[in-house]
Amino acid sequence: MEAGDKEDISAECKARLEGFKAIAESALDEVMPKGGEGDAVLAEAVRYAVGSGGKRIRPVVCMASAIAVGAGAEDVRYAAAAIELLHNYTLVHDDLPSMDNDTVRRGRPAVWKKFGEANAILVGDALQALAFAAAARQPRGTAQIVAELADKALGVVQGQVEDIDGREKTVEAVERMYARKTSDLFVAAAVMGAVGGGGSPGEVEALRRYAFNLGLAFQYEDDFFDGDSVFGRDVARSRAKARTDDALAALEGLSGDATVLKELARGLLARIL
Amino acid sequence: MEAGDKEDISAECKARLEGFKAIAESALDEVMPKGGEGDAVLAEAVRYAVGSGGKRIRPVVCMASAIAVGAGAEDVRYAAAAIELLHNYTLVHDDLPSMDNDTVRRGRPAVWKKFGEANAILVGDALQALAFAAAARQPRGTAQIVAELADKALGVVQGQVEDIDGREKTVEAVERMYARKTSDLFVAAAVMGAVGGGGSPGEVEALRRYAFNLGLAFQYEDDFFDGDSVFGRDVARSRAKARTDDALAALEGLSGDATVLKELARGLLARIL
Repeated sequence: MEAGDKEDISAECKARLEGFKAIAESALDEVMPKGGEGDAVLAEAVRYAVGSGGKRIRPVVCMASAIAVGAGAEDVRYAAAAIELLHNYTLVHDDLPSMDNDTVRRGRPAVWKKFGEANAILVGDALQALAFAAAARQPRGTAQIVAELADKALGVVQGQVEDIDGREKTVEAVERMYARKTSDLFVAAAVMGAVGGGGSPGEVEALRRYAFNLGLAFQYEDDFFDGDSVFGRDVARSRAKARTDDALAALEGLSGDATVLKELARGLLARIL
Repeated sequence: MEAGDKEDISAECKARLEGFKAIAESALDEVMPKGGEGDAVLAEAVRYAVGSGGKRIRPVVCMASAIAVGAGAEDVRYAAAAIELLHNYTLVHDDLPSMDNDTVRRGRPAVWKKFGEANAILVGDALQALAFAAAARQPRGTAQIVAELADKALGVVQGQVEDIDGREKTVEAVERMYARKTSDLFVAAAVMGAVGGGGSPGEVEALRRYAFNLGLAFQYEDDFFDGDSVFGRDVARSRAKARTDDALAALEGLSGDATVLKELARGLLARIL
């Protein structure tokens, strides 16, 4: 799932997103293995999996959340790298033959197609370890940041277990699965950014609420564009709108600049109204 | 690999090991999912993977290291759980069909045989996340503890990538692989125990050296009993002895009680001399 298409947002916001992306790429490069003695294969495969062309929407949410509590994007560079590494590990494992069996990712062979299935399992494992290595480098609120990342990493796995379990689901079960598969990493991104940026407990909870709703809105947007929608287009659109409204409402009263977070939420909605 | 057979150690030490094991089981039970709404499958599979009958040698090293710097075993209960969760994730993934293709583990069906391949990948992923969740709960030295666990988690993956790569290895490459596959988690256990127990930087480094050498000694012991030994029995025995001596030497000058660590190292050696 991709989000934050540049067409829907202002020129000023576009420029800020490019700045965030540059910080994320730099932090990722810093924490990934360099390919020293005996590490060449793993380093190459890890860097292939993480790529560099993506929009880095989760790091963007992390850095924009830090700014929304009055800190700077650079202050949470390692948290931003951590959430992107964790996201990419889930993609590498999701693509595996015994999971979704996808052979292509971002227009290139999936990691398992290029490096083999065993190496792809290990690359995903390495990316998860690297995510926590990056999170541990955040100087402020480290324990809370690692705990949040671990909690949401577990949530994503739980969502995937529910997704593949094949039993028919109630609407409530589908929404819980959506929350875990999509919202959880957005929540981790926002909370890590807010905590790493020194936000108050109230600000951290506000940004948690923002990200939870933003994640669900994205998932309903996916549903809207997906012919196979669980809820149907009309229901998906109205739910996406309600969740976007909730996300925007959560941003009231923050001490910093929440412009980027607002534009991300509004840009999403603009595409389906 | 199992170690610390009770025949080789004193009755007093046996009793202490049982106490450590009880703390580890209690901490593991506390941090593992309980099987709430929608979580039943994952909780069952995670608990199956972790089991309860093992010797919990890595948690033992962690708790004994805390005692060796003057703290108590309970002080590092979450670090002890973390290292065991991480170890068990590596076993679950190592057993997968595309990896070692082992169908039996500890006398029971491997996780992938019992729960399916996709769920086994996810269970391993969940166990790694749980390991970091547990580590984040250590109240003292949290950032250093998480960083150590992440670094060694990456080392284990690197060792596995080297193991499956199939190219012929120099003796140095085999030793580096041994260090990563076996010593790395012993080192993480000892360092987390020493840091969590408030050890001085010098004590932390001493226990790192102990654990690194103990891990290699275990690997050479494995080689000694393995008909397929890389080095041959005589070389394996002499290397195990040299590494055990180095491990014991590292324990000089610690501020706490290093008896258990000493007995673990000597017990190992007693089996092959």
